[in-house]
Amino acid sequence: MTDREELESMCKRRGFIWQSAEIYGGEAGFYDYGHLGARLLDNWKREWKEFFLGLDENYQVIHTPSIHPYRVLEASGHVDHFSDVMVRCERCGSSFRGDQLVEEETGENAEWMGKEEISEKILELDLSCPDCGGTFSEPEDFNMMFQLDIGPTGEKKGFLRPETAQSAYLNFRREFRALRKKMPMGLATIGSAFRNEISPRRGVYRMREFQQAELQIFFLPGIHDDIYEAKFEEIKDTKVRIKRAEAEEAKEIELQDIEDIPAFYLYHLGEMYRFASEVMDLDPKEIRFRELPSEERAFYNKIHFDLEVDFDTIGGWKEISGLHYRSDHDLKQHQEGSNTKLSVPTDNGRKIPHVIELSYGIDRNIWALLDKGYHPDDDRAWLDLPGRLTPRQVAVFPLVRKDGLPEKSREVYDVLDDDLLAHWEKSGSIGKRYARNDEVGTRYCVTIDYDTLEDDTVTIRDVESTEQIRVSIDEIDEIIEGLIEGEKSFQYHQKS
Amino acid sequence: MTDREELESMCKRRGFIWQSAEIYGGEAGFYDYGHLGARLLDNWKREWKEFFLGLDENYQVIHTPSIHPYRVLEASGHVDHFSDVMVRCERCGSSFRGDQLVEEETGENAEWMGKEEISEKILELDLSCPDCGGTFSEPEDFNMMFQLDIGPTGEKKGFLRPETAQSAYLNFRREFRALRKKMPMGLATIGSAFRNEISPRRGVYRMREFQQAELQIFFLPGIHDDIYEAKFEEIKDTKVRIKRAEAEEAKEIELQDIEDIPAFYLYHLGEMYRFASEVMDLDPKEIRFRELPSEERAFYNKIHFDLEVDFDTIGGWKEISGLHYRSDHDLKQHQEGSNTKLSVPTDNGRKIPHVIELSYGIDRNIWALLDKGYHPDDDRAWLDLPGRLTPRQVAVFPLVRKDGLPEKSREVYDVLDDDLLAHWEKSGSIGKRYARNDEVGTRYCVTIDYDTLEDDTVTIRDVESTEQIRVSIDEIDEIIEGLIEGEKSFQYHQKS
Repeated sequence: MTDREELESMCKRRGFIWQSAEIYGGEAGFYDYGHLGARLLDNWKREWKEFFLGLDENYQVIHTPSIHPYRVLEASGHVDHFSDVMVRCERCGSSFRGDQLVEEETGENAEWMGKEEISEKILELDLSCPDCGGTFSEPEDFNMMFQLDIGPTGEKKGFLRPETAQSAYLNFRREFRALRKKMPMGLATIGSAFRNEISPRRGVYRMREFQQAELQIFFLPGIHDDIYEAKFEEIKDTKVRIKRAEAEEAKEIELQDIEDIPAFYLYHLGEMYRFASEVMDLDPKEIRFRELPSEERAFYNKIHFDLEVDFDTIGGWKEISGLHYRSDHDLKQHQEGSNTKLSVPTDNGRKIPHVIELSYGIDRNIWALLDKGYHPDDDRAWLDLPGRLTPRQVAVFPLVRKDGLPEKSREVYDVLDDDLLAHWEKSGSIGKRYARNDEVGTRYCVTIDYDTLEDDTVTIRDVESTEQIRVSIDEIDEIIEGLIEGEKSFQYHQKS
Repeated sequence: MTDREELESMCKRRGFIWQSAEIYGGEAGFYDYGHLGARLLDNWKREWKEFFLGLDENYQVIHTPSIHPYRVLEASGHVDHFSDVMVRCERCGSSFRGDQLVEEETGENAEWMGKEEISEKILELDLSCPDCGGTFSEPEDFNMMFQLDIGPTGEKKGFLRPETAQSAYLNFRREFRALRKKMPMGLATIGSAFRNEISPRRGVYRMREFQQAELQIFFLPGIHDDIYEAKFEEIKDTKVRIKRAEAEEAKEIELQDIEDIPAFYLYHLGEMYRFASEVMDLDPKEIRFRELPSEERAFYNKIHFDLEVDFDTIGGWKEISGLHYRSDHDLKQHQEGSNTKLSVPTDNGRKIPHVIELSYGIDRNIWALLDKGYHPDDDRAWLDLPGRLTPRQVAVFPLVRKDGLPEKSREVYDVLDDDLLAHWEKSGSIGKRYARNDEVGTRYCVTIDYDTLEDDTVTIRDVESTEQIRVSIDEIDEIIEGLIEGEKSFQYHQKS
C-alpha cells in the first residue's frame, strides 16, 4: 500500500506535483506540475490522443477557450442546475458540502441527495460543525461555476467552463461542414475545466481547476449502429470487471455477454478498458466499471458507467473516467438556446444527432499512475510507469568521473537524447544515481565503465528487476527503443 | 497580399479558426481552433518545446493553473498597474481604449501614454465618440485582469493570470531544489492567459483569452556570463534585421556587431531569430527585431526587443514575440510578497537570480503562419506551411473509385498514417481533391492510378511547384519523411 504522505513528499521533492502558489501558503484546490510531472502529463495526453483519435478517422481534436458567455451555460442547464448542496455553521461560519458531511458519517454515497434529503439526514444523524460543534443553517444550493465580467461595463457575464464538453457541442455545426458531413463524427477537447468546490479534497483528485480530455461522438442510433456493431465484433471477447447498478459485487465478464447495452456503447467501453489496461498498464484487478444507478446519474445520461481505480492513497475505488450516453439532450438544448438548426438530414427527414461522451479527468489519471506505480519498498523506492508514459525513459552515467568516462557517457547520451526522454548525470555514487532514478520512474539506466573504453559495450539496468545486461554501444538506441515500445522484453536480451 | 476576409473565410470553411460560441453570435475576443487549426497549434507547440528546451538540459517545462490568488498578483504589481486607459462616451456609454483612439487619429504608437497624456491628446485632437459623436468622460484606469471569487464565502479573491510568467517565478524555489541547484535554470509554461480587453481587435491578434509560450531563464550576471559567451560564439555571425530604439529604419547586421548588449541577451535573440526563420520558415525580409524605447518598456525591462512580422491582414509590422531582460525584479517582488527567501548562495554571499524572458503569443505566431503562408492566386489558392507544422502532411487518393484503386490507396494510406499526419479521400474529381488539399497546406498528394496496379509505383505531387514525381510504393514513406524533414528536396527526386 502506497502511503499518501510518502507519495506526496516524493512528488514535491522530485518535481512532479505540489500545491500551487506554495510560497504564498497555497490555495486549496490548485496544483502545479513540476518538470517531471509536466512531462508525464504531456506523455499521457499524447497517448490519449493517439489511442482515441486512432479509433476513427473522423474523430478529431479541437482547441477552445475556457471562458463561455453566460447564455451558453444557461442553455446547457448549468446556470440553474450545476450546484452542490452547501451548509454553513451558524456559529463559526465555515461552509461544507452537505453530501460530504453525510458520507463521512454513514460511509454511503450521498452525492445524489438534494437539499431536502441532506436536511433530513442532518437532523436524523444529529450532525454538527466538525470545526466548532455549532449547528448548521438550512442547506442551500451553491452554484459551482466561477462567474466573471467580460468587457469594461460589467453588463456582460461569463463563466469559466465547468467541463470541456460544451465546446464540442458549440462547434458541432461548423465542424460537421468542415469535415464534409461525415458521421459518426467525434470532437475531442483537452483542456482546463473549473469548479468552485466548497471544500476541495483528496489532493489532485478534486480540484478547483483541473484538466479534462473529453471526446464527444455525434451519431444517429438506428443509422450508424452497423458501423459500431462491426467495430465491436473485433473486441467483443474482451474481459472486463463490471459492477452493474443492481449487483452487490463486480464480476468479470466478456463484453459480448452484456446483452442489454447497445454496441455503440460497449465498443467504446471496451476501448476505454484497453486504454487503462494496455496503455496505462493498470492491473486488471485494480480497475472496474461501475454502472451508476439512476439516482446518481444526470437525467440525460441514458447509460452511464464510470471506470474506477482502487486507489491506495485516497480511499479505495474512485472514478477516473466515465462513458455517458447523453442521447440528443445537448444539441437539443443548444438548438433551442441559440435558435440555430443543429439537426442533420437523413433519409427520414432531419434528426438531431445523439452524443456518446468519453470523459477523462486527466489529473486523476495521472494520480492513478503515481498511486499504483510508486513502490516505497524497504530496500529501495521505485516508480513503475509504462515506458511510453514515464517522464524519463533512460539515464546515462559514467561509472567514475575520470579517465574519459564522463566524455564517453556524454556521447552515448547525445545519441539516446535524439529520440528518447534521456537524462545524464555524473555526480554522487553509482548507487545514489540508481536510487534517484528508480524513484522517478527511469526505465533504464546505462552505465559507461572501463570495459566500455576497451570493447564498446555498456550495461543497461532495468528498473523493475534491477538486473543488468551488457550490450554493444552501436545497438543501444535500437535496444532501448524496442524495450520501450514493448517489442522485446528485458528477459529476451538477458537470455541472448 | 493576403486579404483578411478571404483568409478568415478559408479558416472558417476548412476547420482552422473562427469566433467562439458562434451559434450564439459569438463574443468579442474569443476564438476556437477547429480540427486543422488545433493540429497546427499542437505542431507549433511541439516544435517550440523541442527548439527552446533543446538549448539547455536545464531548461524545463512546467504545467500550472490559470487562476492565481489575489496576493500573487498584488506582489507582482498587476493589481496596481496592469491597466489600460479607458474613456467612455458620455452620450452613448460606449467604452474605448484611449491609446487606440489617439493611434487611429495620429497613426503613432500611443500605448505608453497615461491618463494625463491621453486626456491632453483628446483635447488637442478634438476627439469625439466614433459611434455617436458624443464627448468623452475623463480618462480612467481600467484594470485588465478578470477577477473572481474562490470558495463559497466571497471572501477570497483571485484572478485569471494575465501572463503565464508568474507561474514560473512562483515555482523557482521548488524547482531549483528539484533540479539539484543547477543554474542557469529555465522554466517554460505553455498555456492560457487572460486580459479583459476594453475593445478586442484584429482577430486572433488581440484576444481576451489567448495562449502564451514563455520561457523564464534564471541566471546570475557576472557568474554565468561565460556560459552564454561560449554559446553565443557559435551563432555570433547570424545576420538579423534590427531596428534600434534611436534608429529611423531597420538594418541588417551580424549579431556580433551589436556591441552594447551582453551575450546572454544576444544569444537568445539569435535563437529566436533561428526559430522564426528556420522552424517557422518566415521570410527574413518580413521579420525584424524592434528595440522598444524607454517610454514603451516596462520599467523593470532593462533590455527589450520585440520580434515583429510584416502582416498582410492586420496592418503591417506587429509583434509576435519578445525578449525581456527583467533583471531581479520578479523574484525580488515575490520574495517580499511571500516573505520567502528566493536568493541562492554564491561565492560572494546570497544573490537573487535575474530573469531573461522569451515570451511568445502563440495565436499571433499561428496567424503569422497563415497570413504569410496563404496564397489565393488566380489559378489556385494554396497554403505554404513548413512540413513539420502543417496540419496535413500527406493526402492519398485513388485516381478513380473503381477497379481496386480505392482499396490500393487505402493500403498506402495505412502505411503513411503510422508516422505522418495523413489524410485519405476518394470523393470528387482529382482536380477538386488537389484544390481542397492545396488550400489547407497538404504538402504532398499521392495518387494511386492504373499503373500502380501493374508496377507498384505512385505519383507524389508537391504543393509548392504542383509538379509530380513517380516513385515505388516501397519507398514512399521514406521519401515523404525525408522531404518533410528537409533531408532531400523535391527537385532532388525529380532529377533522380
